[in-house]
Amino acid sequence: MGSVFGNLLKISIFGESHGDGIGVVIDGFPSGIAFDETFILSEMKRRAPSSHVGSTPRKEPDLPRILSGVKDRYTTGAPICAVIENTNTRSEDYAPFSETPRPGHADFTASIRYNGYQDARGGGHFSGRLTAPLTFAGALCKLALKEKGVEICAHILQIGALYDNTFPLAPTQSLFSSLREKSLPVINDAVGADMTAYLEEIRANKDSVGGMIECIATGLPAGVGSPMFDTVESRIASILYAIPAVRGVSFGAGFDVASMLGSVANDAFYCENNSVKTVTNHHGGVLGGITTGMPILLRCAFKPTPSIAKEQNTVNLKTGENTILEIQGRHDVCIACRAVPVVESAVAISLLDQMLEAFGYENFR
Amino acid sequence: MGSVFGNLLKISIFGESHGDGIGVVIDGFPSGIAFDETFILSEMKRRAPSSHVGSTPRKEPDLPRILSGVKDRYTTGAPICAVIENTNTRSEDYAPFSETPRPGHADFTASIRYNGYQDARGGGHFSGRLTAPLTFAGALCKLALKEKGVEICAHILQIGALYDNTFPLAPTQSLFSSLREKSLPVINDAVGADMTAYLEEIRANKDSVGGMIECIATGLPAGVGSPMFDTVESRIASILYAIPAVRGVSFGAGFDVASMLGSVANDAFYCENNSVKTVTNHHGGVLGGITTGMPILLRCAFKPTPSIAKEQNTVNLKTGENTILEIQGRHDVCIACRAVPVVESAVAISLLDQMLEAFGYENFR
Amino acid sequence: MGSVFGNLLKISIFGESHGDGIGVVIDGFPSGIAFDETFILSEMKRRAPSSHVGSTPRKEPDLPRILSGVKDRYTTGAPICAVIENTNTRSEDYAPFSETPRPGHADFTASIRYNGYQDARGGGHFSGRLTAPLTFAGALCKLALKEKGVEICAHILQIGALYDNTFPLAPTQSLFSSLREKSLPVINDAVGADMTAYLEEIRANKDSVGGMIECIATGLPAGVGSPMFDTVESRIASILYAIPAVRGVSFGAGFDVASMLGSVANDAFYCENNSVKTVTNHHGGVLGGITTGMPILLRCAFKPTPSIAKEQNTVNLKTGENTILEIQGRHDVCIACRAVPVVESAVAISLLDQMLEAFGYENFR
Amino acid sequence: MGSVFGNLLKISIFGESHGDGIGVVIDGFPSGIAFDETFILSEMKRRAPSSHVGSTPRKEPDLPRILSGVKDRYTTGAPICAVIENTNTRSEDYAPFSETPRPGHADFTASIRYNGYQDARGGGHFSGRLTAPLTFAGALCKLALKEKGVEICAHILQIGALYDNTFPLAPTQSLFSSLREKSLPVINDAVGADMTAYLEEIRANKDSVGGMIECIATGLPAGVGSPMFDTVESRIASILYAIPAVRGVSFGAGFDVASMLGSVANDAFYCENNSVKTVTNHHGGVLGGITTGMPILLRCAFKPTPSIAKEQNTVNLKTGENTILEIQGRHDVCIACRAVPVVESAVAISLLDQMLEAFGYENFR
Repeated sequence: MGSVFGNLLKISIFGESHGDGIGVVIDGFPSGIAFDETFILSEMKRRAPSSHVGSTPRKEPDLPRILSGVKDRYTTGAPICAVIENTNTRSEDYAPFSETPRPGHADFTASIRYNGYQDARGGGHFSGRLTAPLTFAGALCKLALKEKGVEICAHILQIGALYDNTFPLAPTQSLFSSLREKSLPVINDAVGADMTAYLEEIRANKDSVGGMIECIATGLPAGVGSPMFDTVESRIASILYAIPAVRGVSFGAGFDVASMLGSVANDAFYCENNSVKTVTNHHGGVLGGITTGMPILLRCAFKPTPSIAKEQNTVNLKTGENTILEIQGRHDVCIACRAVPVVESAVAISLLDQMLEAFGYENFR
Repeated sequence: MGSVFGNLLKISIFGESHGDGIGVVIDGFPSGIAFDETFILSEMKRRAPSSHVGSTPRKEPDLPRILSGVKDRYTTGAPICAVIENTNTRSEDYAPFSETPRPGHADFTASIRYNGYQDARGGGHFSGRLTAPLTFAGALCKLALKEKGVEICAHILQIGALYDNTFPLAPTQSLFSSLREKSLPVINDAVGADMTAYLEEIRANKDSVGGMIECIATGLPAGVGSPMFDTVESRIASILYAIPAVRGVSFGAGFDVASMLGSVANDAFYCENNSVKTVTNHHGGVLGGITTGMPILLRCAFKPTPSIAKEQNTVNLKTGENTILEIQGRHDVCIACRAVPVVESAVAISLLDQMLEAFGYENFR
Repeated sequence: MGSVFGNLLKISIFGESHGDGIGVVIDGFPSGIAFDETFILSEMKRRAPSSHVGSTPRKEPDLPRILSGVKDRYTTGAPICAVIENTNTRSEDYAPFSETPRPGHADFTASIRYNGYQDARGGGHFSGRLTAPLTFAGALCKLALKEKGVEICAHILQIGALYDNTFPLAPTQSLFSSLREKSLPVINDAVGADMTAYLEEIRANKDSVGGMIECIATGLPAGVGSPMFDTVESRIASILYAIPAVRGVSFGAGFDVASMLGSVANDAFYCENNSVKTVTNHHGGVLGGITTGMPILLRCAFKPTPSIAKEQNTVNLKTGENTILEIQGRHDVCIACRAVPVVESAVAISLLDQMLEAFGYENFR
Repeated sequence: MGSVFGNLLKISIFGESHGDGIGVVIDGFPSGIAFDETFILSEMKRRAPSSHVGSTPRKEPDLPRILSGVKDRYTTGAPICAVIENTNTRSEDYAPFSETPRPGHADFTASIRYNGYQDARGGGHFSGRLTAPLTFAGALCKLALKEKGVEICAHILQIGALYDNTFPLAPTQSLFSSLREKSLPVINDAVGADMTAYLEEIRANKDSVGGMIECIATGLPAGVGSPMFDTVESRIASILYAIPAVRGVSFGAGFDVASMLGSVANDAFYCENNSVKTVTNHHGGVLGGITTGMPILLRCAFKPTPSIAKEQNTVNLKTGENTILEIQGRHDVCIACRAVPVVESAVAISLLDQMLEAFGYENFR
């Protein structure tokens, strides 16, 4: 109960931020998928701390060691286990938090849920570091999806009051490539420069800020997903809410639908080259929980990093008294920045799992 | 795959809008819970079409017949099956949609997913009518949750550009009671009157409009939920996305976090009567995927009813040609209005399931 | 938790023996399978009480009413719900058992598990009657499996000290047909006559007797099933142990392997018509948890009906005193006799579920 | 799909016999359980190859490295990952088996299931070596179960035609202790000596032999398990069939019930010290799928090691021609011998999972 996700494709993530190691077991992955190590490491690097102002200055090399499931550079069909050793941990930074929990963090709830036995160092199993194995698993799933023509890409859509452009109706490969290479992945570079300046300011103020990510998945066939509870949205939202700091998930026009008229929100169908498409994509690629063949489009809101250097009010769980907390350490100014490949990974894992299910039924057609 | 939800508590929903009947099997429900028929029927009635302008003029008595799992007015511990017979169906209204799919509706995706064998009448298994058995299951779960001190209540927060007040930090029982009795459940009656007038206008225009619902769950103990994939948010979002027309789900401050500073978003802890609380509730009652003991607060966006009387562009799936669709029938002007108890029900089902899991671990403390 | 089985194909069984009705929801069933009502009713009839001496003289017409998931005689892909009304119940026969539990029956454990709230009449949810909806679900699965060339057939292999012939290595269709039509399904009719005489004797003695069923599934492709925990044996055994009174399940040579040499037990491979086969079938069609393409062969032991007319020692759960129990009512002399189609059904459900999973991976080859 | 087991407690096993490492992730394990390393290593040693004649002469130190989930010698509640490095592998011994599959082994089915990409060296993921992480997980579960008063113990009941004594109705702690220390765990040492001599003979003949294990679990409260599909037997049988070579699983009187009369098989109830017990234990501690409070008693049949030194007939999968196979290497004469702690472990994992579920419902009493 907890860190296992999926139905046919199951991933089991383990590890605590300052323990010996973190990693993932990927069960039910198809055999015969080429294990492109270069691609996987480049994906891991996109998530790792960088020199960008939004990121923590911690160094996490995050080199996964593959223990099983890959032979001669192809997946074998057996569970794939990847382990990332923990290095460069400074546990003393985190010592007091099991006693004086950080506002906005899981310190308090972990101590209730695990009765004080949790590994509180570095956030333990609640650490954003656990998104490294998620990204590894996502990279592998992207390789399998690519064989079926599916591509997944995300970018920063919002930080504070600054907004990037949204994805066009039919994004190009070159847009995807350029986004993957940017240290701050935005479509509009002028906005990116503004965001960077804004983040510098936040850091100077010893504060943090939230952000929003937009993600697209292209190339999916129509017909994936099932009503009522295994809708594409249910399955994707379920795994996105595993990413620490996510507070909102929406599809297509998202929360804007609350003020839209049906005559505007409805996406008109039309035929092109024997294929049914929609003129607009307010539905975000899913109707009735099932893919339409249009790109899946979703948004995901991240709260500000809870760990900030400013003084904050909290309680001492041992004495039951109110107290003041001042947090040391090296934290991200805006976690949304590094979460871009993590969101893509979560979507990839979920979609591959659902495609495997859908394929099972195709055989009966 | 599809219409089964839950882990210890499992619900299996069946039925098609114009078939013989719809219903639900609730498996793993605790024994010995008093079956309060009056309460359950009042919950069903909240969801049923009403005389309010937002609602369809269809009549759906929705009287569930209990086939199993209840004896002498108490649950027996065996699966509870409730069947609602379908009456007052006018299938001819829906006849053409398997051929000329309605924009924004599941007609097209269903025909791909089920290879043309789906029951397309009235939306079939995709119909909003399937939320009736969901509401029945939710009402039962509310009865079990009430024994543990948990209450769940929702209201319309937004329609178009009109906004109701948000829930106060600690809502009263009388607020909950008054909301349950209103035909348009809003906190601020002046806003409610404006919404009603706005909906009249939309109806006159043969259009529909979206809306947003806010839901709160009070009385939950701290410590329910598990990282990474069985977070409270994952499990609640997963079931909310089973409700037709939901396009967004968020917790606490929701998408507003994207523009918030950490120093604002973080909810300071304090101690009161030996219990840890937070001054504000931007976190929405969940940190690290685990309940804090503060109310769970969430928002859910509904798109406009796709079925509108205006002309729309679509395709003929048989001929592959573009065509014009004009929809007859009796539809809701704003489905969010009737979805209030449905959202509550989805939250209730999910929370009872997670509480049963959490209780299993308490025994080891 | 309890009465839901399966992964992609999920069945949810409900009902209590003397409640209003029993039934099943079948979720994830492929669309477009012809609903052959004649076949399904003939399967239900094989399980229903008959005039044979082994059977109870109760009458249970067991006519399922289909509420959903079937339209124009084809499955729609939506959940299929079948309800069987309970008739001809004589609850007074069972009244005392919640207080003075029957030895060998679930009366005692149900009262502990459900804290006295269980419906004890007729065994409630533990009744063998619940195998009627299982048989309905199995019959539907057989129809889908038949489209893939898979056939499932079982017979009584043992009652007391009397043994029927075992299935030949490659059974014929005519063997299957003849078994399905017999009131006591045995291969060797001389043994069948002896069994009937033996059962007359048991009934005269107010006693009951156990039995063993052998089941075969032919036509499965090689490659279905997965190590370690989703082996074909794990999944089949799991559902067979849902049938009341099953105490043993074995595959291929079964418990005989404990005294076999490797040189005897190993089934030599050979090639025939470009297909790999084995000379013998001690492995029962499964190696490493995965089908070999040889018939799946299994055995299933049923204990004697616990309800017998002889006096038995039990306790009074209210007073805590030892007491004597004398059971009235109409019981099967040997439940194994009527369990033949139930075993087939359990195997069918499990295999269809696993085939759907296997098909999902084939798409990646 | 495959190597993940459990509901609240989930174990995910990974590794291939001659890959880099094998191991397990244990998710949902209660926090605060003392991690008794001495006990765990002693359990691992019971499974490891020994100097006994029944065992392979391979050396497998099997020292697990704990990467997560344990801190300061207590479980933290986060997933526990244990890795065992593979050493002393001689892959050349196994080279030809992906081309000329060993009779009775998974070589053939793996090549179909994974389309030739499987790691065939040493049996890959199908190797008996994968029972090492299962034993590690089982040892941990035994530690948690012991806190609830549950003990699990097994012994060799049969090898060839030689039978050990069965467990007494109420076994003593000293019997359990003595069995855990024996290199060939049997109750009757005279039989043990005969078995050892018989195994010497088999080895001299370059053959192997099957065996049967009997396992008991004492101290379980009444009320654990759920009809219909989550019976104690379903869940235990499901995991036992994950152990390579298991061909049969039975409970209580097992297959003997097929020839028993109801008046003999029914276990009479009586009261002793306010607790309900049965005079005999033919039911094996489970009625209606739910524990009675009597010991759970089960049997498990193992086929002979398929790898034998004698010549065998097989096919060449590349050429499609029949051929002769002669297997080199170091194999167990009777795998049942080393499987004793593995069976105990499987039972422990399954029972802890079901107890966690049962505890969740107790809170509602």
